[in-house]
Amino acid sequence: MKISVVGLGLIGGSIASCLKQSGHKISGYDIDEKTISYAIKNEIINFGSTKLINIEDSEVVILALYPTVLIKWLKNNQEKLSANTIIIDACGIKGVIISEIKKFLRSDLEFVGCHPMAGKEASGIMHSSPTLYKDANFIITPVDNSDYAINVAHQIAKNLKVKNISEITPLEHDEFIGFLSQLTHVIAIALMNANDNKDLSLYTGDSFRDLTRIAKLNEDLWTELFTMNKEILINEIELFEKSLDEFKNALKNDDIELMKTLMIKSTLRRKEFDKK
Amino acid sequence: MKISVVGLGLIGGSIASCLKQSGHKISGYDIDEKTISYAIKNEIINFGSTKLINIEDSEVVILALYPTVLIKWLKNNQEKLSANTIIIDACGIKGVIISEIKKFLRSDLEFVGCHPMAGKEASGIMHSSPTLYKDANFIITPVDNSDYAINVAHQIAKNLKVKNISEITPLEHDEFIGFLSQLTHVIAIALMNANDNKDLSLYTGDSFRDLTRIAKLNEDLWTELFTMNKEILINEIELFEKSLDEFKNALKNDDIELMKTLMIKSTLRRKEFDKK
Repeated sequence: MKISVVGLGLIGGSIASCLKQSGHKISGYDIDEKTISYAIKNEIINFGSTKLINIEDSEVVILALYPTVLIKWLKNNQEKLSANTIIIDACGIKGVIISEIKKFLRSDLEFVGCHPMAGKEASGIMHSSPTLYKDANFIITPVDNSDYAINVAHQIAKNLKVKNISEITPLEHDEFIGFLSQLTHVIAIALMNANDNKDLSLYTGDSFRDLTRIAKLNEDLWTELFTMNKEILINEIELFEKSLDEFKNALKNDDIELMKTLMIKSTLRRKEFDKK
Repeated sequence: MKISVVGLGLIGGSIASCLKQSGHKISGYDIDEKTISYAIKNEIINFGSTKLINIEDSEVVILALYPTVLIKWLKNNQEKLSANTIIIDACGIKGVIISEIKKFLRSDLEFVGCHPMAGKEASGIMHSSPTLYKDANFIITPVDNSDYAINVAHQIAKNLKVKNISEITPLEHDEFIGFLSQLTHVIAIALMNANDNKDLSLYTGDSFRDLTRIAKLNEDLWTELFTMNKEILINEIELFEKSLDEFKNALKNDDIELMKTLMIKSTLRRKEFDKK
């Protein structure tokens, strides 16, 4: 297929290079001239430009942009796309994005919400990799989509060599992500900020490093993601706080049995999780 | 040196095999016959027994036991040790252990609190490894110790191939561990118990897996560790809850600037941490 990737950061660059290796013809677009040069030099794309030259030739346009930028880009540039173009995204949030896009999208274009679930604590095309999504989870959130468009999304996911492809609603997506991704990032931020001792690294084992790895994050992107999922995320934080309080109170009350019960439960759940 | 290791689980087995490879002569003791056979067969120890045969020959005795078991063992068996034996432990808690032991320890024996900081989400000698402590942090908590005893602890740490050896007070140790290790385990337990959706594993990226890896834990050991550090751990949980609330309220109030500030702070702190 002829595919355009708009936004050649870590995500867009990784998608572009992997799809190119799968045999698709990739045009890459980015506002940064150096990014385009890098992408061409490193054979991440077949063609690249800071202008949207020839984007009308693409059957599929993949938007690898920040959520707010994505909505603006589509509003400003949808007239440049040919009829029947399938538009796919890679955003970590779905409900707000899809409902906003529905308000203005041309009726002869089709948007399929997608979320390939992997990332890195680094941004920019120089950190991109054709194997970023290998064995990852890939979520599609269909809303009034044609079978053809859903099939295209599946095809792209398979070409990215993901492990699982799931179809769920945008709301289910945002709830899962609120818990699994956003809450974990909030916890890492809060933990990293809870204690200002600079010598801590001398006394730590692996658990703290693992838990706070994601405390290094892009504040512009994550503020957008959190704000667009505000109600769900606040609810998830509060459910977590309840669970934490239950454990704290067991400790306060020397309730050894309850502490053990909670540990056995978390151990079983985590083991179940490993199997899949 | 002639060294005895009492308790041949994951920790004791790993210490024994590494020290044996460093050239020490290791006697291993455990209440489980099969553990002793395994340790001899796999050359983890030079000599092993379920009885304390020849323990009086050891210059150093390393206790790799649960905290409560350690105290009982020493109370019941200290008369079997020769004068001037150095006793070392590997417990994740120091204040209570040291103050309890001080109450009854023979004046011709010397106890040096040690904490080699590494572990696994699995227990038993079959999971032990001579490289468990390679590049780990090692904490010594001297209290009225002779230079000789402290030197022995350093020597053992070096033979375990650790990266950093720190000397701090038992209280400092318990505060650091309360934050760095115990709080992170409490968070992982609470997070794993906060949501009972069994299909979550289909939708997750790496962050949740990393954060909950330590939610699989030995409830008997960790209940002891938490209970023995109760006041400090409750304080750490509450500091974390405050930090979490600060972020939650920023999100509730759409305070984008505060959210970004907290993310930048966590990012900088985590980067600082990586350097060491």
